Amino acid sequence: VPVRPSPELVAVSQDRLAEKRLFRSLGIATAPFDDEVRPDAAAIVKTRRGGYDGRGQVRTHDAASRAAALAELPEPIVEGVVTFRRELSVIAARASDGTVVTYPLVANHHGGGILRRSLAPAPDVGPQMQDEAVSIARRVLERFGSVGVVAVELFDVGGRLVANEFAPRVHNSGHWTIEGAETSQFEQHVRAVLGLPLGSCAARGLSAMVNLIGTEPDAAAVLAVPGAHLHRYGKAPRPGRKLGHVTVTAESPEQLVDRLAKLDVALAT
Amino acid sequence: VPVRPSPELVAVSQDRLAEKRLFRSLGIATAPFDDEVRPDAAAIVKTRRGGYDGRGQVRTHDAASRAAALAELPEPIVEGVVTFRRELSVIAARASDGTVVTYPLVANHHGGGILRRSLAPAPDVGPQMQDEAVSIARRVLERFGSVGVVAVELFDVGGRLVANEFAPRVHNSGHWTIEGAETSQFEQHVRAVLGLPLGSCAARGLSAMVNLIGTEPDAAAVLAVPGAHLHRYGKAPRPGRKLGHVTVTAESPEQLVDRLAKLDVALAT
Repeated sequence: VPVRPSPELVAVSQDRLAEKRLFRSLGIATAPFDDEVRPDAAAIVKTRRGGYDGRGQVRTHDAASRAAALAELPEPIVEGVVTFRRELSVIAARASDGTVVTYPLVANHHGGGILRRSLAPAPDVGPQMQDEAVSIARRVLERFGSVGVVAVELFDVGGRLVANEFAPRVHNSGHWTIEGAETSQFEQHVRAVLGLPLGSCAARGLSAMVNLIGTEPDAAAVLAVPGAHLHRYGKAPRPGRKLGHVTVTAESPEQLVDRLAKLDVALAT
Repeated sequence: VPVRPSPELVAVSQDRLAEKRLFRSLGIATAPFDDEVRPDAAAIVKTRRGGYDGRGQVRTHDAASRAAALAELPEPIVEGVVTFRRELSVIAARASDGTVVTYPLVANHHGGGILRRSLAPAPDVGPQMQDEAVSIARRVLERFGSVGVVAVELFDVGGRLVANEFAPRVHNSGHWTIEGAETSQFEQHVRAVLGLPLGSCAARGLSAMVNLIGTEPDAAAVLAVPGAHLHRYGKAPRPGRKLGHVTVTAESPEQLVDRLAKLDVALAT
């Protein structure tokens, strides 16, 4: 019995073309890509390998700009532009006995290609959408019998889920689980790869995860916010670099909004 | 501003005689000791320094056995036997700005002089008893202007609290706070000694902390229990040694009882 993330799944996750083909082979919707995108249509040209946080990709708006991007980027893939309502992600874990557990869908807010904050559980998710997310994560994990955590980034397109990409590991959009879920994504991954039973993915109240990007905050100001939990990664400050995150827990949407407002003030000082 | 546990408080905590005198000087009830205990009465003779987990103490039942214990133990102190309803503890933290925060009282169950399990919050604690515990912890922390966490072990004697001993640090009976409280006692201590604001001590549902003593459990069996969180300390097994603990979280007393029953089975396998 393999007790690790599947090497095949890891390889696929590192190649945007293989990733899209995997999704399609599993019956999971993706953005149109390559020949499916009209030559003069708006598109995003991405490198197949190595891009992250918005790096290694260029938005194009006509045939000329696309040709320039295709010439510039190594191993390019063309993606059609998807008009989505919002960005979501789902995190799931598969145990060595085949059990799959899935966290509630999370709503992600990006800025400049970088994840800025996640709300967990995502608001306005019905059982049908959560079930679809569970099914998507399960198909990805089961394709190669992978063990451990996987995160799938999704677009909400009129209530249907379109897969963007996946990561065969713990994910930034799952950091809220440390305080906000019964079992954290990190503990879940460790349980899985040690061949142990998985824990509950149930949320404990509401959470918001706010990334600390580029500069360190005033720790005292952050920790004065009720329900705030500060995580610093000990990394050197650099523009655009994730240096840590704050998870804010709350009992109700009203309380979460109030605490996030306080946090915004704390981060601006 | 001192930003550390008071050295005076640490010194007092290491000497059972100084500890009792401190409690008394702060108006906190203790067991009778030394000359207050009739020569032939049942008593516990303890070393003033270095005892823990029931070590360094002898129960005596008459003048002869007491004389033998006094001759045997270094720097002995005689404590009268207190008839108590149950054992409780309170954990509090003091920030460098003087703010004191206090966790809910916890009910502790010992066996063979060693803490076996804690229930948090302790059942059947009214606001008056919690207030008395808060006041006791506050007086101890404020005596020398200490910063950081303190734990006070208490006897519930007919609804009044009698102090047994205190520890100027995080405490075994506070390990439940990792999953069971908004802010763990460890984070609370770190916040305090870094001069940062303290977090909420509110409980998140109900918790039970079960010490793993002497032998390692079957991790898979433990983690199959809903709400169970396993903490291993990486210590070599030895009879009577605390090798780790399990915290079980639950939403209701009924659920906690059910999960603890499952855990007992898991620990017996």
